[in-house]
Amino acid sequence: MIFSPSITRLIEAFRRLPGIGPKTAQRLAFFILSMRKEEVEDIARALVEAKKKVRQCSRCFNLTEQELCSICRDPRRDAGLLCVVQEARDIYVIEKTGQFNGYYFVLHGALSPLEGIGPEELKISTLLQQIRQEKIKEVIIATNPNVEGDATAFYIAESARPLGVKVMRIGFGLPVGGDLEYADELTMSRALEARREIL
Amino acid sequence: MIFSPSITRLIEAFRRLPGIGPKTAQRLAFFILSMRKEEVEDIARALVEAKKKVRQCSRCFNLTEQELCSICRDPRRDAGLLCVVQEARDIYVIEKTGQFNGYYFVLHGALSPLEGIGPEELKISTLLQQIRQEKIKEVIIATNPNVEGDATAFYIAESARPLGVKVMRIGFGLPVGGDLEYADELTMSRALEARREIL
Repeated sequence: MIFSPSITRLIEAFRRLPGIGPKTAQRLAFFILSMRKEEVEDIARALVEAKKKVRQCSRCFNLTEQELCSICRDPRRDAGLLCVVQEARDIYVIEKTGQFNGYYFVLHGALSPLEGIGPEELKISTLLQQIRQEKIKEVIIATNPNVEGDATAFYIAESARPLGVKVMRIGFGLPVGGDLEYADELTMSRALEARREIL
Repeated sequence: MIFSPSITRLIEAFRRLPGIGPKTAQRLAFFILSMRKEEVEDIARALVEAKKKVRQCSRCFNLTEQELCSICRDPRRDAGLLCVVQEARDIYVIEKTGQFNGYYFVLHGALSPLEGIGPEELKISTLLQQIRQEKIKEVIIATNPNVEGDATAFYIAESARPLGVKVMRIGFGLPVGGDLEYADELTMSRALEARREIL
């Protein structure tokens, strides 16, 4: 027995999301069909609107609905501190610790020669320019604790050191091979406290 | 730090789905924002279209895009057999066994006096009418093995028996491939009750 075409399309739509297997996709699809029409349209609108409105901050490449993100618009932050993260979502993990009050720089990825992701794709030259121009004293590299994240951290450290800036790596309290997104607040706090100079 | 309004709405949209906690909702939201605009619109369209096109089969209340569902349209099935299920998705679980070739009746719920769900809400009078008119010989009740499902099965059995039809309940016991050590008392009780002679 086969699902009707639009149920199949709905299941396939859910399957495209990360961590959603065939069974979950099926369950979500049937749940959608059990909701009121207005609720479903509401969800669909939330998807399209978010994608339409949200763009990258022109300064740090965090996600925002304005020219500058809410962090870059905040003048009370420490302009001497810059934290480099792989993804915009990582900012929220760090912000939740309440231990960092500098600014961020979102790479939107990590170096990966196999996937053709080099320094250009991660806007590392823009990062170095900011470090040079904006009186930054300390750069904390909070890329993921895995091969790509470490390689990216090392590359940035090598490039930034000649600029006379202190380059730090978040501490390993994070489980190696893990993903920053899933870190709990305490582990993330420890990692911030235990940061060390890379070279 | 707060997410931007449309990111918040997107996270809240995912939170409305079953089994999606705050972390998963956040992860899915950021994934959506990382997708191409066309892909997101595609998913949104799949939601709205499915909800618009899919309705209940006028005969068995399964989900379909036509007047009758694909099972009710199939004349090769055994018209003497009717399987009663709580939800449309349960049909797919039974169909996958390839062991049932009768028709279905979807209650879209189970009796629950506390939630105000009585026989009327489950269209049980329509079910009884079909049993009476359509030469059904055997009704298999496949509602869930819990208080509501059992009560519903009992209610249908009591109502259908006077119509001279054989009313059956699906078998309960240990799940195949399971381990006796981990069986809960209720399942074990049911398994003992349902014992059969080996040869």
